[in-house]
Amino acid sequence: MDLRNIKQGDLAVLGLPVDHNSSFMTGPAMGPQRMREALHCGSANLTCENGHDLGNDKRWKDLGDLVFEDTNTAIAEIETRAGEIIATGAKLLSIGGDHSVSAPLLRAHSKRYPDLNILHFDAHSDLYDEMQGNRDSHACPFARAMETGRVKRLVQVGIRTLNKHQQEQAEKFGVEIIAMKDWHPGITFNFDGPVYLSVDLDVFDPAFAPGVSHHEPGGMSVRDLINTLHKLDTDLIGADIVELNPHRDLVGMTAMVAAKMTKEISSKLLAG
Amino acid sequence: MDLRNIKQGDLAVLGLPVDHNSSFMTGPAMGPQRMREALHCGSANLTCENGHDLGNDKRWKDLGDLVFEDTNTAIAEIETRAGEIIATGAKLLSIGGDHSVSAPLLRAHSKRYPDLNILHFDAHSDLYDEMQGNRDSHACPFARAMETGRVKRLVQVGIRTLNKHQQEQAEKFGVEIIAMKDWHPGITFNFDGPVYLSVDLDVFDPAFAPGVSHHEPGGMSVRDLINTLHKLDTDLIGADIVELNPHRDLVGMTAMVAAKMTKEISSKLLAG
Amino acid sequence: MDLRNIKQGDLAVLGLPVDHNSSFMTGPAMGPQRMREALHCGSANLTCENGHDLGNDKRWKDLGDLVFEDTNTAIAEIETRAGEIIATGAKLLSIGGDHSVSAPLLRAHSKRYPDLNILHFDAHSDLYDEMQGNRDSHACPFARAMETGRVKRLVQVGIRTLNKHQQEQAEKFGVEIIAMKDWHPGITFNFDGPVYLSVDLDVFDPAFAPGVSHHEPGGMSVRDLINTLHKLDTDLIGADIVELNPHRDLVGMTAMVAAKMTKEISSKLLAG
Amino acid sequence: MDLRNIKQGDLAVLGLPVDHNSSFMTGPAMGPQRMREALHCGSANLTCENGHDLGNDKRWKDLGDLVFEDTNTAIAEIETRAGEIIATGAKLLSIGGDHSVSAPLLRAHSKRYPDLNILHFDAHSDLYDEMQGNRDSHACPFARAMETGRVKRLVQVGIRTLNKHQQEQAEKFGVEIIAMKDWHPGITFNFDGPVYLSVDLDVFDPAFAPGVSHHEPGGMSVRDLINTLHKLDTDLIGADIVELNPHRDLVGMTAMVAAKMTKEISSKLLAG
Amino acid sequence: MDLRNIKQGDLAVLGLPVDHNSSFMTGPAMGPQRMREALHCGSANLTCENGHDLGNDKRWKDLGDLVFEDTNTAIAEIETRAGEIIATGAKLLSIGGDHSVSAPLLRAHSKRYPDLNILHFDAHSDLYDEMQGNRDSHACPFARAMETGRVKRLVQVGIRTLNKHQQEQAEKFGVEIIAMKDWHPGITFNFDGPVYLSVDLDVFDPAFAPGVSHHEPGGMSVRDLINTLHKLDTDLIGADIVELNPHRDLVGMTAMVAAKMTKEISSKLLAG
Amino acid sequence: MDLRNIKQGDLAVLGLPVDHNSSFMTGPAMGPQRMREALHCGSANLTCENGHDLGNDKRWKDLGDLVFEDTNTAIAEIETRAGEIIATGAKLLSIGGDHSVSAPLLRAHSKRYPDLNILHFDAHSDLYDEMQGNRDSHACPFARAMETGRVKRLVQVGIRTLNKHQQEQAEKFGVEIIAMKDWHPGITFNFDGPVYLSVDLDVFDPAFAPGVSHHEPGGMSVRDLINTLHKLDTDLIGADIVELNPHRDLVGMTAMVAAKMTKEISSKLLAG
Repeated sequence: MDLRNIKQGDLAVLGLPVDHNSSFMTGPAMGPQRMREALHCGSANLTCENGHDLGNDKRWKDLGDLVFEDTNTAIAEIETRAGEIIATGAKLLSIGGDHSVSAPLLRAHSKRYPDLNILHFDAHSDLYDEMQGNRDSHACPFARAMETGRVKRLVQVGIRTLNKHQQEQAEKFGVEIIAMKDWHPGITFNFDGPVYLSVDLDVFDPAFAPGVSHHEPGGMSVRDLINTLHKLDTDLIGADIVELNPHRDLVGMTAMVAAKMTKEISSKLLAG
Repeated sequence: MDLRNIKQGDLAVLGLPVDHNSSFMTGPAMGPQRMREALHCGSANLTCENGHDLGNDKRWKDLGDLVFEDTNTAIAEIETRAGEIIATGAKLLSIGGDHSVSAPLLRAHSKRYPDLNILHFDAHSDLYDEMQGNRDSHACPFARAMETGRVKRLVQVGIRTLNKHQQEQAEKFGVEIIAMKDWHPGITFNFDGPVYLSVDLDVFDPAFAPGVSHHEPGGMSVRDLINTLHKLDTDLIGADIVELNPHRDLVGMTAMVAAKMTKEISSKLLAG
Repeated sequence: MDLRNIKQGDLAVLGLPVDHNSSFMTGPAMGPQRMREALHCGSANLTCENGHDLGNDKRWKDLGDLVFEDTNTAIAEIETRAGEIIATGAKLLSIGGDHSVSAPLLRAHSKRYPDLNILHFDAHSDLYDEMQGNRDSHACPFARAMETGRVKRLVQVGIRTLNKHQQEQAEKFGVEIIAMKDWHPGITFNFDGPVYLSVDLDVFDPAFAPGVSHHEPGGMSVRDLINTLHKLDTDLIGADIVELNPHRDLVGMTAMVAAKMTKEISSKLLAG
Repeated sequence: MDLRNIKQGDLAVLGLPVDHNSSFMTGPAMGPQRMREALHCGSANLTCENGHDLGNDKRWKDLGDLVFEDTNTAIAEIETRAGEIIATGAKLLSIGGDHSVSAPLLRAHSKRYPDLNILHFDAHSDLYDEMQGNRDSHACPFARAMETGRVKRLVQVGIRTLNKHQQEQAEKFGVEIIAMKDWHPGITFNFDGPVYLSVDLDVFDPAFAPGVSHHEPGGMSVRDLINTLHKLDTDLIGADIVELNPHRDLVGMTAMVAAKMTKEISSKLLAG
Repeated sequence: MDLRNIKQGDLAVLGLPVDHNSSFMTGPAMGPQRMREALHCGSANLTCENGHDLGNDKRWKDLGDLVFEDTNTAIAEIETRAGEIIATGAKLLSIGGDHSVSAPLLRAHSKRYPDLNILHFDAHSDLYDEMQGNRDSHACPFARAMETGRVKRLVQVGIRTLNKHQQEQAEKFGVEIIAMKDWHPGITFNFDGPVYLSVDLDVFDPAFAPGVSHHEPGGMSVRDLINTLHKLDTDLIGADIVELNPHRDLVGMTAMVAAKMTKEISSKLLAG
Repeated sequence: MDLRNIKQGDLAVLGLPVDHNSSFMTGPAMGPQRMREALHCGSANLTCENGHDLGNDKRWKDLGDLVFEDTNTAIAEIETRAGEIIATGAKLLSIGGDHSVSAPLLRAHSKRYPDLNILHFDAHSDLYDEMQGNRDSHACPFARAMETGRVKRLVQVGIRTLNKHQQEQAEKFGVEIIAMKDWHPGITFNFDGPVYLSVDLDVFDPAFAPGVSHHEPGGMSVRDLINTLHKLDTDLIGADIVELNPHRDLVGMTAMVAAKMTKEISSKLLAG
C-alpha cells in the first residue's frame, strides 16, 4: 500500500480480500478483484448517474488490494492501514471482503470522528456478541463498533432477520432499526455530524445480487438504494461495500451491482 | 406419516413430493427436500420478520414427506392424509410438489370448513377444466375446488395469463381475480370466515424465483407478498406453497424464497 | 422474406439476427430464434394481459428471420426490407439483434411518417456519434435517427449511463431524457402523431433480464414497463425489441421476458 | 411434414418434439429445435470429420419437426410418418425427443427390414416391460422392439445401470450387452444385414453431455463414440439421436454434442 | 446416531457435515444431504455395476448425519463415533464433509487394524504439517495419519500438485505416490492386510466433478476410478468419500458422481 | 509494458486482451485477467507437475496486459511489442485474447528464428485466407504465418473441423495435420530447430474447457495435452495460450485449465 500519492481531498479505494471470518461460505476474499474487473469492463463507463465522470477525476485513486502479513492479524492490520489513509486527509472507500472488515474500519474512523454516525444497509444486524466463538466474525462488526463508545448513532436499514439475541443487543446499544418490512422509498435520513456508510450487498433482494453468501429474500432493489443515496444530504466521510461472493455470481451480475455502488458512493464521497 | 405427536393447536408441515400432473416440466417433486435444506441452512435463522422464533415454538412440527402407495392414487392419498392431520385439530402447511396438490388439500379443508375462503397467489388461474386430458393436472386445481360447492370465495391475485377458457371458468365459478396489472401494494384483503392460503411461487417475477416450471415475467416481488401477508387480518386455517422446481434453481435462490415463505406463513398460521 | 401474405392492417414480426455492430459482446444474433422458442413454449400461452389472444388473430404474422446477403450491407438491407414491409400497409415489429438495427428501421419508418415520434426504453442513450470507429455501432442508432431531420421528438426512458459526449449529443438533438433516477410508475406519455417504440431489454434491471450484453443495475421491473405500455394512449406504428443475448440467459428467463414484451407490444400495435 | 421433395437415396432429418413418456424429467421435447440451432450455429460448420460437407450435399434434407395431432397418439403417429418416409426410399434420421420414440421408429424400420440389427448406445438398457404403468415409457422401447419378433440382433453398448428386471429381460430377448465397464476403444462391431443405430446422449459421461435427464457418471467420451462410428463397416439404414434435455444444458454444450453426432451419423447414413 | 440396529457384517453409511477446516472454500458441509438426494433420485437406481442391488441388501444402513456437539470438538467426535461404529463389527463408509474428516476416521480405524494400508485417490497429497496455523486442516489429514505410526502403507494416486514441503513430508513418511502424470488404466494395486479407501472427489478432472472446492485440471475420469475399484482385490475395511461442494454443482452432476462412488464402494465393502 | 526488468533467460508472461477479430463470440479480451486470478487462486499453488516451483523462480515475470493505442493497430502493436521482448533474449508466453494474436506473434518470432517450427493444438486449422472480409480474423493466423515463408514446419494437432477451403490451404502451405480422429496418447513429436507452441483451448473437449467461443465436441482431455508436453523434447522458444472466454466459464473451470497450461508451459520454456 503506497500512500505517497494520497493527499487531502482524495478518495482512496482499497480492496480488502478477506473472508476467514465468514460463518457460512467463503468467497468474499475474491470480491475486490471482480469489482475492479466490473468497474473497468468494456460494457459500461465511469460516469455516475449525476453526470460526474470518475474517469476524469484525479482525486479518485485505487490503492489496489491490501496485502496482509498474517491472516490472524488481518483485522488489526485493516485498522492500522485505514488509520494511515485517513490521516492523510483523504477519505477511504473499502471494497470487497466480508463484513468483518467494518469493525476495524469503524474503529479507525471513530478515532478521527468522535461523533460518528453510521448508516448501515444490510439484511442482517450483525450485532452478535460472538459467532461460533469468534468475536471478529462477520456477524459481529456492529457490536464491536458500538462497544467503542464513540458512535453517536447507528441506523440500520433493510434488516429482515432480527432474532432475540440481536434484538437485545440493538436495545442495549440503542441501535435504530428500519426493518425491511417498514422501509419505503420515501424514507429520508438526517444526521448531525459525520456519517460513515456501510453497504452489505445482501441488503438487496437476491434477485438483484445473487452473488452473496447469505441469500435473504425480500430485500431492496438496486434502484431503491441508489435513489436513497441520491437524496442523502449528509457529511459522508467514509464507506465500505462488502460481501460480494463471486462463487455465486455466475454471469457477473452482482459484481456489476457492486461496481455501480462503488461509482455512486465514490461520487457522493467526493462531493461531500 | 406419524401423527402421534400432532395435536390441537399445532402446525404440521408436510412435504408433498409429486409432479406427475405437471404439464410442462417435472421437478417439483424434489421441492420439499430442498425447502427443508434451505430452512435449516447455516446462512439464515428460524426467526420470522415479526420476531417469532419458530425454532423455539414447540407447536411447529415437520412430518417429513408423504410417502405415496401408488402414483395413480397420490391425489386421493393427499386428501386422506390431510383430512387425518386436520382432524387432530392441528393446522396443515404443505410444502413442495406442483399445484395439483391443492385440489385434494382443498377438498379436505372444505369438508371441515364448509364456508371456506381461498386466497390464491399465482401467475395462472389454474381453472382449466382439464389439461392434456388430465383433470388432476396442476392447471386445474381451482376448477376442482369450485366444483365442490363448498368454497365461499376464491380470490386470485397476481394473475397474468388469463385466456378465454379460464376467463369463462372464472365467470362460471364467480372467481374474484386481481390481475397483476391491477395489483398494487396498497391492496388489502377482507374475508369473513376461515381462509386457506395457496401460494404458487410463480406469482413472483422469475427474477425473484427462477426455480419454477413456468416463467411468467411481470410478477410480484418477494417483499410485496411478505408485506401483504403481514397486513392480512384473517382466520388463516391452512396453506400450501407449491411449484418450487430445483432443476432451474442453479444457486438455490428460489429454495430460499420458498423457505422464507414457509417461515412467514407458519408464523401467521400459528398466530391465528 | 415472403411478403405475399402481408397486407394492410397486419402486424409482421421479423427476426433480425445481427450483432456484428456490438461493441462489447456478441450474441444478439441468436436472439430471434430464442424469442420464438419462448413465444411458443409449452409453459405459456399467446393471450395478452388484456385478453387479446394472438394465437387467434390472423393479422399477427411471423415472417421468420431476415437472411442477409452480406454482413457489410446488413444495415442497408434492413432499411430496404423494412420499407417493403411497411409499404404494404402492414406494421412491423422486429425482434432480436442488437440495437444497431434501429437506425435503418427508423430511417424506413421516418420516410413514411415524416412527423415521427420515438419512445425509447433503454439503460443507454445510444447517441454516440461513433463507437470504435463504427457509425453503425449499436451505441449510435439514435444519433443516426436524429440526423435524418425527420424525427419530431425522441423521448428516452430509463437512461442511467449518460456521459458527457452523449449529454452533448442529447442537447444538440433536443432529446428528452427521463433518467431512471427520475422515473416513477406514475409517469405517462403524450404524443402528437405516430409513435415508434424501441425497447432495449437492458432498460430492465439485470435481475429481470440477465440475458443482455450490457448489465446496468438499477433498471425497471418488467411490470413497470408492461403497465406503462397498458396506459400508453398513442398511435403506435412500429416497434423493435432488441439486445437479447442468449449467452447470458442460462435458464431462458430473458427470452421469456422478450417473448412477453413481444406479445404485449403486438397487441398494442394491432389495437392502434 | 412434406414428403414431395424426399426421394430414394436422400437422408430425411426429422425432429420429434416429445417427452410425455419420460419418467423423471421433461425437456427432450425442446431438443430438436436446439439441435438445429447448434447445427447452423456460426461457431461451427457442416463439414464432417471425413471431409464430407453436408452443406453441399443435396440429399441431406431437414423435414422440420413432426407436428402431432394428439399427444395420446404421438407414438402411433411417429410409426406412421416414419413408415411414409422410408417408403420413399429415403433413409430417416430422427433428432430429439426422449427414447420412447425408438419403439415406433423400430417398428416402422423392422417392417421394411425384417432381418434388422440394432446397435444401441446408452447408459440404460431401456428394456423395462413397463415403467410407472406406461408401456410406451422411454424406459421400454427395446422391450417393445424385441416383442415384434422382427429384430435379428440387439447390441447394447455403454450400459451401466442394469438391474435384475432388465437383466432378465435381456436374457429373455437374447440381447447382447457390452457394459460400460467392459467397453474399450478397440471394440469393433460386425453385423450381417441392415443396422439401425440408436444413440441416447446419456451414453456419454455427463461431463460431455450434461444436458440429459438421467445423469449416469462413468460413460463414454464423445471421441470414443465418434471413432467407433468411423470404424463401423455396416449397412446403416436408419438412426435416432435422443434425450437431449435443454433444461440442463446451461451453455449449449450438449446441443453441440447432439449436432456433432447428427453430422457424423448423417455422413455415415449417406455413405452407406 | 443410533447404533442399535448396526451389527457385525453391516455397512454403516454416515454423513459428516463439516467444512470449517477447509482452507479455500466452504460448502462440503452440505455434501451428505445432496449425496443422499442423488442416491435416491428418481433418475437412477440402487443397483451397482456388478449387479448387486443395494436397495435389497439389508446390511446397507444409513445412519444419517452426525450431529456435532461443538464445532471445536468435531474432529474428536468423529473419531469417537467412528470407533463406536466399527466396534460393532460393522464397516463404516463416511460420506461428505471436507478431507479433514479422514484424520479422525483413520485414527479410529488404525486402532482396530494396526497393520492398516491406505489407498488414497486425490489431486493433492494432503500431507501438510499445518495449513494457515491449523493442524486439523483438510490439507493435513495424511500427515496426521502417518504420525500415528500405525499405518503400514499409504498409497496416493492421482496427485498433481506436489510442492516441495509435501514432497519432503512424503519422503519422511515413506508415502508411495502415483502421480497423475504416471497413472494409466492398467495399474493394479496389491496390498497385504486390511485396506482403508479415501476418495477425494477432486481426483477426478473438474470436467467430471465440477462441484469441488479445488479445481485441479488433468485428473481421472469417473470410468477410470470405477474400473480400478472393480479390479481391486483387497480386504477393504472402511472408506470415505469427501469434498463434494454443492456451491459449484449447478445441475447436480457432481452429487451424482458422489452417489455413484457411494454405490460402487458400498458394494465393494459389503463383498469383502 | 516495462521491459527494464526483463533480461536474457527470463520468461516474460504478457496478457493480450483482444477479441475484436473473433468471428462468432467476443469475450477472450477478458481472458488474461481471469487467467491471472486462477494462477494466484488460493485453491492451488505454483508448483508444476515436474516439481518446478514457479513461485520461487525469479526468471518468471509477469508483464501485465498490453495496453493498446488503438484497436485498429492492435495486431501491429502485438508484433512490435513481442519483437521488443524477444530482443532482450527473454522468451515470451502470451496469455489470453483470441487466436488472431498468433499471426503477429509468429511474425515476430519468425524474424528471430528463420527456421521456425510451429506446434499448434486446436480444434480448427485457422487457415482461412480471410473470414467475413477480415484477414486478421482469429480464423486466419496460420495462413498469415505460412505466407511469411519463414516457417519450416507447421504441425497441427487435434483438428476436427477441416472444410474444403482449409484443406486446400493446408495442401498449399504443406501443413502437417494430425486430426483428432487419428490422434492417440502415444504420438510423439520430433522437431529440428526451434519450436513455437500455440495452444487454443478449444483443442480440449468442451467438457474440460467449456469457456471457449467455439464448442467443438470430441476433443482432447487436459491430461492428454499435459502428458504430451511432458514428453516433448524440443527447443521451445515461445508460446501462446488463447481463446479463453469467461462468458461461458460459469464456475471458473476453464480459467483454471488455462492457468494449469500456463504453469506447465512456463516450466517447459524455462527448462529449454
